[in-house]
Amino acid sequence: MRIALLGGTGDIGEGLALRWAYHTNHEVLVGSRDPDRARAKAEEYETELDSRGVECTVKGFENAMAADRADVVVLAVPAYHLVDTVEHVADRLDDETVLVTPAVGMRRDDHGFHYNPPSAGSVAALAANAKPDDVPLVGAFHNLAAGRLADLDSEFEWDTLVFGDDDDATDLVSTLAEEIEGLRAVDAGGLANAAEVESLTPLLINVAANNEGMHALGVRFH
Amino acid sequence: MRIALLGGTGDIGEGLALRWAYHTNHEVLVGSRDPDRARAKAEEYETELDSRGVECTVKGFENAMAADRADVVVLAVPAYHLVDTVEHVADRLDDETVLVTPAVGMRRDDHGFHYNPPSAGSVAALAANAKPDDVPLVGAFHNLAAGRLADLDSEFEWDTLVFGDDDDATDLVSTLAEEIEGLRAVDAGGLANAAEVESLTPLLINVAANNEGMHALGVRFH
Repeated sequence: MRIALLGGTGDIGEGLALRWAYHTNHEVLVGSRDPDRARAKAEEYETELDSRGVECTVKGFENAMAADRADVVVLAVPAYHLVDTVEHVADRLDDETVLVTPAVGMRRDDHGFHYNPPSAGSVAALAANAKPDDVPLVGAFHNLAAGRLADLDSEFEWDTLVFGDDDDATDLVSTLAEEIEGLRAVDAGGLANAAEVESLTPLLINVAANNEGMHALGVRFH
Repeated sequence: MRIALLGGTGDIGEGLALRWAYHTNHEVLVGSRDPDRARAKAEEYETELDSRGVECTVKGFENAMAADRADVVVLAVPAYHLVDTVEHVADRLDDETVLVTPAVGMRRDDHGFHYNPPSAGSVAALAANAKPDDVPLVGAFHNLAAGRLADLDSEFEWDTLVFGDDDDATDLVSTLAEEIEGLRAVDAGGLANAAEVESLTPLLINVAANNEGMHALGVRFH
């Protein structure tokens, strides 16, 4: 399987790229608006993996070129770039491509972080409105501490909430999630339930900010 | 310490009443709009505890009478009764009483449960606006599966998120929470962060609805 991480030079993109390259045989493509930056980051990831005895090829591309080559396209971009990014790559997607959004819209005030949904109701709904109709969209990987994900020495036992209206697509993304060691995919229902999933991210940040010894948090449901 | 559970005949009230009576020496008062119902439920709880070899007195009162006698008053009522309940007991509270809200406002559609905050921004903000100024308010116990809490045979390892603007009051409620076996209190910051905490409850319900073998869920942050 080929997985493109658009915005794969950013923190959550880096974490997912490294983990999939480390734990699986999938081909990881790093996308960026700037292809030079994508290639530089891809090399950096290769070096990191090589230092751990993992031989793999990570390639960098401009976002649309990465999307064009991929079976699964992860929108690892800030929420305010989401629509632009989807529109930019739209004609590279088809009904065989699964689009994945881990994006969360937040605002910050003196007290902490807060969920800041767009008028569409959720960030995922923005992506759903911007994508071609026949391309399935799945939400996942919102609630992972990016730094810890990118640190291959770090172990965790986290759940990632997966949602979407296309069962085959959500099953595929759940499988990809669980191929990352320590990650369990939990079904949060359809796209209509996106806001409740996206809201968990500011809560995790607030909990990390207010409790000594609790940093880089994830959750487990039980 | 005397803890009044207003709406203590309902599901989350029952769980907290039984757990505090079972695990601690605090005096538990069951409040209800109907004092006969409060007394009947209190007797039911006593019988349940007695069957487990725990001798304790659980008393039932009309809500205002329960609040009047208590050091800590938990508003274990549905969100749409919250303001009425606070106003009804307001002149029984003083700056020595800690008011606790576990209430969450939700709506349900064909897809699942959704957070449905009032225009005040959160259910806790409604309670804050309705209470006397000098009475500290703490949010806690939103995210516990009530049925499992009320089943004293059930063990769990859950976090409860505690928030509030009065440090002494939040510390007290955190201590009371941790006196329940298996419960850890986690600081979510001030009242301004209430919505992120309250949003977690519909997510838990959606996860329980969509995953086989995951019922009566709580979360742990790590």
